[in-house]
Amino acid sequence: MASGQTVPLERDQAHYLFGVMRLTEGSAVALFNGHDGEWQAEVTSAGKRGGELTCRSQSRPQAAPPDLWLLFAPIKKTRTDFIVEKAAEIGVARIQPVQTDFTNAERIRRDRLQAHAVEAAEQCGSTYVTEVNDLARLDRLLANWPAERQLMFCDEAFAEASYGTPDGAPRPLGDAPRGPWAVLIGPEGGFSEAERKRLHALPFAWPVQLGPRILRADTAAVAALTLWQLHLGDW
Amino acid sequence: MASGQTVPLERDQAHYLFGVMRLTEGSAVALFNGHDGEWQAEVTSAGKRGGELTCRSQSRPQAAPPDLWLLFAPIKKTRTDFIVEKAAEIGVARIQPVQTDFTNAERIRRDRLQAHAVEAAEQCGSTYVTEVNDLARLDRLLANWPAERQLMFCDEAFAEASYGTPDGAPRPLGDAPRGPWAVLIGPEGGFSEAERKRLHALPFAWPVQLGPRILRADTAAVAALTLWQLHLGDW
Repeated sequence: MASGQTVPLERDQAHYLFGVMRLTEGSAVALFNGHDGEWQAEVTSAGKRGGELTCRSQSRPQAAPPDLWLLFAPIKKTRTDFIVEKAAEIGVARIQPVQTDFTNAERIRRDRLQAHAVEAAEQCGSTYVTEVNDLARLDRLLANWPAERQLMFCDEAFAEASYGTPDGAPRPLGDAPRGPWAVLIGPEGGFSEAERKRLHALPFAWPVQLGPRILRADTAAVAALTLWQLHLGDW
Repeated sequence: MASGQTVPLERDQAHYLFGVMRLTEGSAVALFNGHDGEWQAEVTSAGKRGGELTCRSQSRPQAAPPDLWLLFAPIKKTRTDFIVEKAAEIGVARIQPVQTDFTNAERIRRDRLQAHAVEAAEQCGSTYVTEVNDLARLDRLLANWPAERQLMFCDEAFAEASYGTPDGAPRPLGDAPRGPWAVLIGPEGGFSEAERKRLHALPFAWPVQLGPRILRADTAAVAALTLWQLHLGDW
């Protein structure tokens, strides 16, 4: 974006700004496109089916989210929407829905989930938008895993008090390397025994346990992202 | 509860167990009453409008939640329900909805929120039930605050990097006293300036900030409870 640049409005954007929010020509609007920070813009044309904004000046620089992915097994619609919204608020660069051995979902509505991530960014005054990927199989993702990306996974059946290594020795998450990370949340039924064995054997995987009570998958997602942000992120 | 003790079923319980779950006489059921742990029971009478369970043996001892209260300003219905459900899962002894200067809610449906807390306990295999109080004014609660209970409050406008004292010097939450605590989450519009001043001046109050992005009130509640559990609770 640049000062003086005009931005055409689509029909539903015009409806929201002029029909719902009752803005008129001359009204101020905050704009972001995910790349150029936040800009103050002015309504320079307002119609029923369209309109135009004109950029005036940058009000905030572009911020980058932590280089964190969230991998989760989709659950019921409302709770899946919730996970996407909360992940976007807490600060995640990419959301990757995964199919595990015990995941029921065969497909997801990627466009709808992406729209939730956009709305969360608008609500929270974020300048970036969390990217939502299509559903992928967990085993294939792990087979092609980028070597430098660490993976924190939540294992209800993991008996250690807090954190542990694949060989069972505990290691504090605060000592873990910075840089690219992912957080993996299993489905409501947990991981299969084969998945657990495979995950525990991965050199880049860090098992964690989230307290003594059983958490729903959506609660576990928010709690795990908070834990990561506190230890390794920008909180 | 005691071995051999019978428990009569109300109409909706009978409908759920025999109509929805299709249990019959002789089926096993896990029971808890919030005081006596978890018991294995058997269906000894199954009817359309009622029935009877008979306790066999205790399967788990009674667990106590951490002595933690959650104070929050009610927001929209779905998000308020969500806060109650998540607080019960993460582990809170009591939920106290509060009216602050910027809270819209005049009243809440205490019975409905309590039912959500019961359902969360059932879902999560908990043996205790989080108690939901009626709506109360924050200023009155603070005026009669129990001296030994610490209060963590989330202040979006608080400029310190992480935690701070009323006089501005940071103090790590890990050094905070154990024992009774409360976590306070403000309304979507934040606390009023008068409330902020009062909270920061309280000797038992610990301000925290939850990352650089603005969180919705329900996200802030889950993140703050996770933070408390990690530093001061039983996680």
